[in-house]
Amino acid sequence: MKVDAITTEPPKWGVKYEDIDVDENLPIKLKPVYTGICGTDRGIVSGSLPFAYAPHGRQKLILGHECLAKVIEAEDNDLGIKTGDYVVPIVRRPGKCVNCLIGRSDNCSDGDKHEAGITGLNGFMRSEFQDYPQNLVKVEDPDIASIAVLTEPLKNVKKAFEMFDTVSKKSVFTDANGAYDEKRAIIIGTGSEAFLYGLASRDYGFQTYMTNRHPETESKLRMIERPNITFYDYTKDTSVEKNGFDLAVDTSGDPATIFRFIRKMNNNGIVILFGTNGRAPASTFDGSDIDYIIERNITILGSVDGSRIHYERALQDLTRWNYQYGDLISNMITSRVKPDNTDIFLHKQPGEIKTVIGWS
Amino acid sequence: MKVDAITTEPPKWGVKYEDIDVDENLPIKLKPVYTGICGTDRGIVSGSLPFAYAPHGRQKLILGHECLAKVIEAEDNDLGIKTGDYVVPIVRRPGKCVNCLIGRSDNCSDGDKHEAGITGLNGFMRSEFQDYPQNLVKVEDPDIASIAVLTEPLKNVKKAFEMFDTVSKKSVFTDANGAYDEKRAIIIGTGSEAFLYGLASRDYGFQTYMTNRHPETESKLRMIERPNITFYDYTKDTSVEKNGFDLAVDTSGDPATIFRFIRKMNNNGIVILFGTNGRAPASTFDGSDIDYIIERNITILGSVDGSRIHYERALQDLTRWNYQYGDLISNMITSRVKPDNTDIFLHKQPGEIKTVIGWS
Amino acid sequence: MKVDAITTEPPKWGVKYEDIDVDENLPIKLKPVYTGICGTDRGIVSGSLPFAYAPHGRQKLILGHECLAKVIEAEDNDLGIKTGDYVVPIVRRPGKCVNCLIGRSDNCSDGDKHEAGITGLNGFMRSEFQDYPQNLVKVEDPDIASIAVLTEPLKNVKKAFEMFDTVSKKSVFTDANGAYDEKRAIIIGTGSEAFLYGLASRDYGFQTYMTNRHPETESKLRMIERPNITFYDYTKDTSVEKNGFDLAVDTSGDPATIFRFIRKMNNNGIVILFGTNGRAPASTFDGSDIDYIIERNITILGSVDGSRIHYERALQDLTRWNYQYGDLISNMITSRVKPDNTDIFLHKQPGEIKTVIGWS
Amino acid sequence: MKVDAITTEPPKWGVKYEDIDVDENLPIKLKPVYTGICGTDRGIVSGSLPFAYAPHGRQKLILGHECLAKVIEAEDNDLGIKTGDYVVPIVRRPGKCVNCLIGRSDNCSDGDKHEAGITGLNGFMRSEFQDYPQNLVKVEDPDIASIAVLTEPLKNVKKAFEMFDTVSKKSVFTDANGAYDEKRAIIIGTGSEAFLYGLASRDYGFQTYMTNRHPETESKLRMIERPNITFYDYTKDTSVEKNGFDLAVDTSGDPATIFRFIRKMNNNGIVILFGTNGRAPASTFDGSDIDYIIERNITILGSVDGSRIHYERALQDLTRWNYQYGDLISNMITSRVKPDNTDIFLHKQPGEIKTVIGWS
Repeated sequence: MKVDAITTEPPKWGVKYEDIDVDENLPIKLKPVYTGICGTDRGIVSGSLPFAYAPHGRQKLILGHECLAKVIEAEDNDLGIKTGDYVVPIVRRPGKCVNCLIGRSDNCSDGDKHEAGITGLNGFMRSEFQDYPQNLVKVEDPDIASIAVLTEPLKNVKKAFEMFDTVSKKSVFTDANGAYDEKRAIIIGTGSEAFLYGLASRDYGFQTYMTNRHPETESKLRMIERPNITFYDYTKDTSVEKNGFDLAVDTSGDPATIFRFIRKMNNNGIVILFGTNGRAPASTFDGSDIDYIIERNITILGSVDGSRIHYERALQDLTRWNYQYGDLISNMITSRVKPDNTDIFLHKQPGEIKTVIGWS
Repeated sequence: MKVDAITTEPPKWGVKYEDIDVDENLPIKLKPVYTGICGTDRGIVSGSLPFAYAPHGRQKLILGHECLAKVIEAEDNDLGIKTGDYVVPIVRRPGKCVNCLIGRSDNCSDGDKHEAGITGLNGFMRSEFQDYPQNLVKVEDPDIASIAVLTEPLKNVKKAFEMFDTVSKKSVFTDANGAYDEKRAIIIGTGSEAFLYGLASRDYGFQTYMTNRHPETESKLRMIERPNITFYDYTKDTSVEKNGFDLAVDTSGDPATIFRFIRKMNNNGIVILFGTNGRAPASTFDGSDIDYIIERNITILGSVDGSRIHYERALQDLTRWNYQYGDLISNMITSRVKPDNTDIFLHKQPGEIKTVIGWS
Repeated sequence: MKVDAITTEPPKWGVKYEDIDVDENLPIKLKPVYTGICGTDRGIVSGSLPFAYAPHGRQKLILGHECLAKVIEAEDNDLGIKTGDYVVPIVRRPGKCVNCLIGRSDNCSDGDKHEAGITGLNGFMRSEFQDYPQNLVKVEDPDIASIAVLTEPLKNVKKAFEMFDTVSKKSVFTDANGAYDEKRAIIIGTGSEAFLYGLASRDYGFQTYMTNRHPETESKLRMIERPNITFYDYTKDTSVEKNGFDLAVDTSGDPATIFRFIRKMNNNGIVILFGTNGRAPASTFDGSDIDYIIERNITILGSVDGSRIHYERALQDLTRWNYQYGDLISNMITSRVKPDNTDIFLHKQPGEIKTVIGWS
Repeated sequence: MKVDAITTEPPKWGVKYEDIDVDENLPIKLKPVYTGICGTDRGIVSGSLPFAYAPHGRQKLILGHECLAKVIEAEDNDLGIKTGDYVVPIVRRPGKCVNCLIGRSDNCSDGDKHEAGITGLNGFMRSEFQDYPQNLVKVEDPDIASIAVLTEPLKNVKKAFEMFDTVSKKSVFTDANGAYDEKRAIIIGTGSEAFLYGLASRDYGFQTYMTNRHPETESKLRMIERPNITFYDYTKDTSVEKNGFDLAVDTSGDPATIFRFIRKMNNNGIVILFGTNGRAPASTFDGSDIDYIIERNITILGSVDGSRIHYERALQDLTRWNYQYGDLISNMITSRVKPDNTDIFLHKQPGEIKTVIGWS
């Protein structure tokens, strides 16, 4: 079939909106409603992510892994996906390792998996696509159709916190009331993933801080404060750091920043590494940094991707947050553009939290 | 009471064997049989471990945390500790945090604990000491009296593997047979803790490697090979690294080495940081190192100390290994010296794995 | 102080609305808004719950453990509880066991705890009460003030599912997609706790069934079907049982019913026992029932109470459900009565799901 | 190939020692050294275990699932199984469910697995058999060749305690020292599995009791007391029950006994159901029994079988126990008979703990 698609030729620089032939014959036919763009898309387009590659035998890769789509035709299926349903397609598709075999390709043991729009599989930035029902997660709440494109970034957060739940059992992590109210979380960064981590951290009950190495605009500060998160510019006033942190989530991918905050962790602290920035400058660490981690039983946790369960739970959070925080979530989508505006892949929009492409 | 003791005055350089007054009046009276010395003792003596300090109101700290002792007098007690028993005293004593309150001072949340011979509490390198029964772990197997001084270093290993057991549940870590036989562990270093980690790794079933940046002597190689561990000098032939590692244990405390091996980890790999070396030179790491950790869901786990349960399980392992591996364990004790030979705190002995002081 | 209160004299039959002197001098003063009544209250009043007892030195016990209250005066406190706040008071108060010490009196090891309105502590069915801030959980969402009285019953559900999360890790419990969509849950009973378990089960993604030994009214069926739960009368058509169940929650407390459903469990099935009915008739089970449990690795899990963390998460669920399911949750409160209507303790109201007492 | 084998024709009564044709062509050829017999074998022979069946298309089933074998010919294999090795063959062979796919057929989700000598697969009671290397677990310690036939029954214990490790995390189960020394375990029964559970319980550190409804012989009492286990006849003196139990393991399969001991459990207690007795008489339980389980957060855990990891760990225990407890373990094998003595399937031997058949 012929589709209008946003394409690139990894590992080369460049992005095009063009019509292209794709060869798909799968039981569910879909049209994207919104597709979001993130650092990974920009990294592929700029040729800086060497792991990206086109489908086998092809040169072009259709971009797009953050997506809300509408079903336009559906063969009968056990999962009850029907014409007219809004769905979020799952990005990663399983290989044959022990984790993939039990539906947890996010924990793939051998790298033998594919990611739509990234590694060996066409993405969702196109006028139409087809898929299997098991790769689609239904959006039950009609009121979140305009924000459900955030499901895919949020599923990463849900997986990371699932890891946290397991790992934090290695000692008593909770406070003397068996809860998180007296525990302190720091989210490093103020982009869309940082926001979603911050909201999830507040749901746990953590006293939650967001930080960056520059001040934030008034409007962003208001958004941050809505769920009782406190922002501080760590290059200025670090007084909030004096009680340390129990959980840190890094979305910067910057080694110097990460090690700065590791040294702020309390005993049994957990550091989630999430943000990647392959071009971040080198930083140094020494024996006393290693000591610090050991003497305090600190854990550092790399976390990537998420599986069906995390998409499902992300959708539940979006429903609640949409209600609880008013327009906070929809305000995270700072611009909605047309597919032919490929300029957004090359330049971050001013004040951008999340830019999405509308396909209707 | 007056005791002959090995003392130091932290944070100053120096060590003395002298008689000294101590003020103890506790229900169990003990005499050390053997006390082991390790890098921590040498670090305190050299003035390079700033966290060491003498008991409140004192200038002198009696050294010694690795110990096998014999009970010479015992008040009646619930734990059934009796005159004549061999026991291993527990190093760390609880504070008031949620972890200490449940008997897990190894996971102390706020640092409000003491360590015999290290932080604020006199150690076991003296002609006599007194203690509470709950701080003593009985050695049931009379045949391991000569090696039970290794219980304390081994309890660290048991705690680290307990952490591993919890953390490795975050995905399927085991192989396709539900076991560890096809999983690969690397132990970085060839000292006494490295040996104990290596033996524990073999008990799990891991294909186990030990490595260092220099070749090993014939006699040490024979010891390493006894439990089917493979040694390689990673500055020479790295062919065994081509399949990566699933578990790494660092006993070097050296940042450059640690990051070298993090880059050898397979997906879902777990890196245990155990060895500390506050004077290790700084090393650099960059954004691609962070990427590596994230994309593979790698976990880095600082692990310190252990609690009663780990001493108990360490004793069980010593019993089995003593039987299973013949003189391998007793050969780990490479020299036994008298208490007045304080020179051993200043100079590593040639061919040393573990040096112990005999007190009888 | 003098309060108007609903009292009983355990273990005697009887209930009164009367003014009574209580001796409290705690930092937060509160007025109940709503208090719910449940089977435990009725059991105490009927003299059939031998574990109930009045505060030390008293004959009368003020009833009431399900409560939404408003703060009328508050000393300054770390938890930020302020005058005007809506709060839910925690029922169980810790003793000195290892679980109580870490804020988990719901898992009390030795029974040395108290429960407001049940065991040794006055409850919340009175015109005014006082408490410590750490026993109060703030209701952040003003829109749920009219349903937040359901927090206490729902916290039991959150604790039971926390247990489920831990226990279900003993094997792969999830389906081939790593989620619960193909897993089947049965909720035995159709009362208020059954409803809350059903909603939580749907949040997990379970295909969820509710059952009873009689048909349900049209209006209740509509409520059950709203979150896609299927009701069946197990004395009539059992066709939905042919694929077995993976999770069962019993709210009946009836042995014969429980064992009937244990025999419907699939391999690795988990049965949560929650409902108690001390007067339920005896039933028989034989060796083949035991075989059934063993050969399928089935787990049976008694679950009682919940702690602060479960109250907090219950409030989040109420916020989402209130939005997601419209008036379903508020319709669970089938009657709101005055405090002097003590008749409700003696007779279940027609069509009752939850009866609450309004205090303003 | 033609083999001398012990056969039965399930579901019919009967057992024969005869020569029989089997059709196997697998890479490893083996001869049994010892095969053990247990209640399951006797149940099959007596026709009382309806789940037993012969291999597809056959009428006869070769019995035998407890086995120590010697490799007589081996194709090259990754697991390093070589001619002359002693090995224990794994009983259960995986199907295609999520648990079987990750090597944990002991947790098979759908029953689509086979068990040698029991369900659809010929067992090991024959002069020769063939197998795949992944079904064989190597015995590294030559000194346990005469007792390694106990590996298979012991692997059940290791799996049950693995379950215990997971499930007991739902609250703080350990004592105030973070260990099991003040926790109390009761093993119901005094047969071979009861012994193995008792030894494992002692390894955890539990104060361990064994019980039965009759007194034991002097020689058996001496065996029980060797690892500091206390026996009592619960029909006589129950004074040891006054502090309750934290762990119970039932090997009787008898409902009345099981419920008797459930009522002795402390809060957070865990009851492992292991023994099956399909013909055990029915017993009654009532609402107050259910209450008891719920109010104390008690868990009842059916546990069957074990996987490779449990065979491996069983072998380690046998090595240690053999050394630690002298002839205790070898004395558990109370008689060694010839294959033609099929009478042992019909009559329990006097004083029997474990009867084995020698094949050489």
